[in-house]
Amino acid sequence: MADEAWRLTLSEGLRRLGEGSLTASDWVRSLLERIEGCEGRVRAWVHVDREGALVAARALDGSGAGGRSHPLAGAPVAFKDIIDVQGMPREANSPLYKGYVPQQDASAAARLRAAGAILLGKTVTTQFATSDPPVTRNPWNFVHSPGGSSSGSAAAVAAGMAPAALGSQTGGSVLRPSAFCGVVGFKPTYGRIPRTGMVTVSWTLDHVGTITRSAEDAARLLTVLAGPDGGDDGSLGAAVPDYASASAPRRPGRVCFLKEDFLPRASREVAEWTERAAARMRENGVAVEEGRLPVDFGQLHAAHRIIMRVEAAAYHDRMFRENMDAYLPEIRHNISSGLMVPAVHYVQALRLRARLARETQRLLERYELVVLPSMVEAPPLREKSTGNALFQEPLTQAGLPAITLPLGRGEGNLPVGIQLGAGRLREADLLGAARWCEGELGWRSEIASL
Amino acid sequence: MADEAWRLTLSEGLRRLGEGSLTASDWVRSLLERIEGCEGRVRAWVHVDREGALVAARALDGSGAGGRSHPLAGAPVAFKDIIDVQGMPREANSPLYKGYVPQQDASAAARLRAAGAILLGKTVTTQFATSDPPVTRNPWNFVHSPGGSSSGSAAAVAAGMAPAALGSQTGGSVLRPSAFCGVVGFKPTYGRIPRTGMVTVSWTLDHVGTITRSAEDAARLLTVLAGPDGGDDGSLGAAVPDYASASAPRRPGRVCFLKEDFLPRASREVAEWTERAAARMRENGVAVEEGRLPVDFGQLHAAHRIIMRVEAAAYHDRMFRENMDAYLPEIRHNISSGLMVPAVHYVQALRLRARLARETQRLLERYELVVLPSMVEAPPLREKSTGNALFQEPLTQAGLPAITLPLGRGEGNLPVGIQLGAGRLREADLLGAARWCEGELGWRSEIASL
Repeated sequence: MADEAWRLTLSEGLRRLGEGSLTASDWVRSLLERIEGCEGRVRAWVHVDREGALVAARALDGSGAGGRSHPLAGAPVAFKDIIDVQGMPREANSPLYKGYVPQQDASAAARLRAAGAILLGKTVTTQFATSDPPVTRNPWNFVHSPGGSSSGSAAAVAAGMAPAALGSQTGGSVLRPSAFCGVVGFKPTYGRIPRTGMVTVSWTLDHVGTITRSAEDAARLLTVLAGPDGGDDGSLGAAVPDYASASAPRRPGRVCFLKEDFLPRASREVAEWTERAAARMRENGVAVEEGRLPVDFGQLHAAHRIIMRVEAAAYHDRMFRENMDAYLPEIRHNISSGLMVPAVHYVQALRLRARLARETQRLLERYELVVLPSMVEAPPLREKSTGNALFQEPLTQAGLPAITLPLGRGEGNLPVGIQLGAGRLREADLLGAARWCEGELGWRSEIASL
Repeated sequence: MADEAWRLTLSEGLRRLGEGSLTASDWVRSLLERIEGCEGRVRAWVHVDREGALVAARALDGSGAGGRSHPLAGAPVAFKDIIDVQGMPREANSPLYKGYVPQQDASAAARLRAAGAILLGKTVTTQFATSDPPVTRNPWNFVHSPGGSSSGSAAAVAAGMAPAALGSQTGGSVLRPSAFCGVVGFKPTYGRIPRTGMVTVSWTLDHVGTITRSAEDAARLLTVLAGPDGGDDGSLGAAVPDYASASAPRRPGRVCFLKEDFLPRASREVAEWTERAAARMRENGVAVEEGRLPVDFGQLHAAHRIIMRVEAAAYHDRMFRENMDAYLPEIRHNISSGLMVPAVHYVQALRLRARLARETQRLLERYELVVLPSMVEAPPLREKSTGNALFQEPLTQAGLPAITLPLGRGEGNLPVGIQLGAGRLREADLLGAARWCEGELGWRSEIASL
């Protein structure tokens, strides 16, 4: 068993550790071997903390029941390389941060560490978590993109090199790579997980999210990650339930299929998979009704670009002016554009987004979930693009919880995903519905054969 | 008694109504007579709803105990003319709204109406609630400004033409005119009172506030006005106590006197009054310590201008471009400036403001109150300016509750005020301290002799 421990999901591994049929050291060793075997082809990591992970695992194995009482005791987790982890490099794929090693954990990393997680290493991000293609490959088809900007996190989980990884989403950077890699990408309500100690893309859009191979895993991580933080202005104060027990699998009642807004913008392949997924929900007793986004999609997309570019430009402002040549072409274009936007346009974009958030929330008081595709089209060629975030933008802008589940693999052996969204702070309901879909509809992650 | 009922504060009048020694009709009639006698000189009103107020008062007087059970039953209130009141004109002092009569109450007006208040009429605002001097005179000295932008609300209350009025504050537009007119101006935490149905100046800065002749009156109004509202993105969900009983007078313990930031920027007269006020608090057992704002005042002021101008420009954008000549010089300049600000500067201003809010809140976890002057200098000549909002800006930007109390009258018979501020949602504590100051230190409003 220990040899194949890298195959375990986070929840499976934790159960094995709990019952004593697996040690943390064996789990970590198995993952390190898998990394050894795959990483040369996938290129998901910028840093693997072999020593640190083994030391932490051994300490836990030697600590008796006390150490294992922590909710994530022994669970290996990887971190997108825009998240500070004490003692590991944090370069955000920029030469400007070459060799930078933070002395403190980001809040998200600190919470996982305190919960007993084993901090496995740092995964490849696009430069400053935007859109220039990085070196990482899609584990299902190496010439295609794993998506971005949490490219390495999604690829590592899909390849079985880590059971869980953190990512961040400003446009579609958790759900898109997860969908491209056939794993479970989840982001909660805006502000639910603090961003303290992370590189900022856009203050009002950045979300921390999880990448795992099951929705139960996402629930376990969320229980530890959620909660207020004085260092993050966007942080929410709401109480944090035990999401793993609050999200027991349950069939959703009434869901809103956002067909008319999304399917005409999707590739034929994605549209067909999405139609079949909606039909499958219907056949299994879910009341699937068709509905529309409350705000024009084109306006929304324009607003998203303006907000993201302006806030990125404000964050990078001085560093960018002094080191423009150190920026890759896409982020350079984005920051340059952001520097030229008049504030009035930005405010108008914020107002539009506020209307979207308010009215989508109202829609989600009438429906339990919205259902929409996770991707515009199949993952593009790796060197060309990390793909289009368009279909994640509405729920990202609305700040509402969203998850992607894998439906299967289509042309070129590449995964296709479906996206579910829920109302503000309704993470437990969303995860419960996702767990039902995994169990009853078979929308389950697999590990790429490598 | 009924002849002099116009002299009553809101709370006194409500008590008389409750014990049956006054009727709502007599109260309203007395106020209408006072308006008749003073308005020609003060010019506080744009519309007095004589008929409507008398009809409402008569209905209440005839309704028996049922009608009087509402918390503000029979209380006459005036409204700054940027607040929609059904059936009354709402012109915001702009020719562009000439003759506009809304068909619906603003949320604030609806809440007062539902609580039994008598909606007396509309008071003069500067054009679109910014800074061009309006016709209203300071009741204590007609050649001087009553302050702005809630000019008519403050002047009407100071002149005894209404016991209470609503105003709005984006810079210093509730507290400054209240201080200039020697009455009690109060604004709660940002988002505490919804702004639905009001003309916007700046979404992220606009507060509704009250103008009365006692802090208890402010507490009674707040109990009715506070609470969430789906139409206002900034609206807070927190529970609403009965502020009148929660704000029983109590001596503040430890307060922070923001001497070094404010006194060197104040006129000698204002600085001396403020020093004496702080000394008086000390003599009466309050632990007054000197402290500093957590953010540089000059930067804050720059940030405030950028945020206010940009958001005003975004709101007026199209209407302004099509009707530029209909705008008065100061607002025209402000909107024109706002249209030219790059978004990155606006975002940086928002970030600075967020830091101020966070760190002032921290300061107010160590101190019960901050104490500072309500005004930079005595009210200027009426035709020149409505005065400087500089000293209201920090608490407005931080979104924290603030109140001004009158200390007395100085040169030219003009009032001087003191400003107190408290932590987020600590309105009851702030009002309790203000009531103690009124009672123990004698910082009480008077009515101007006219």
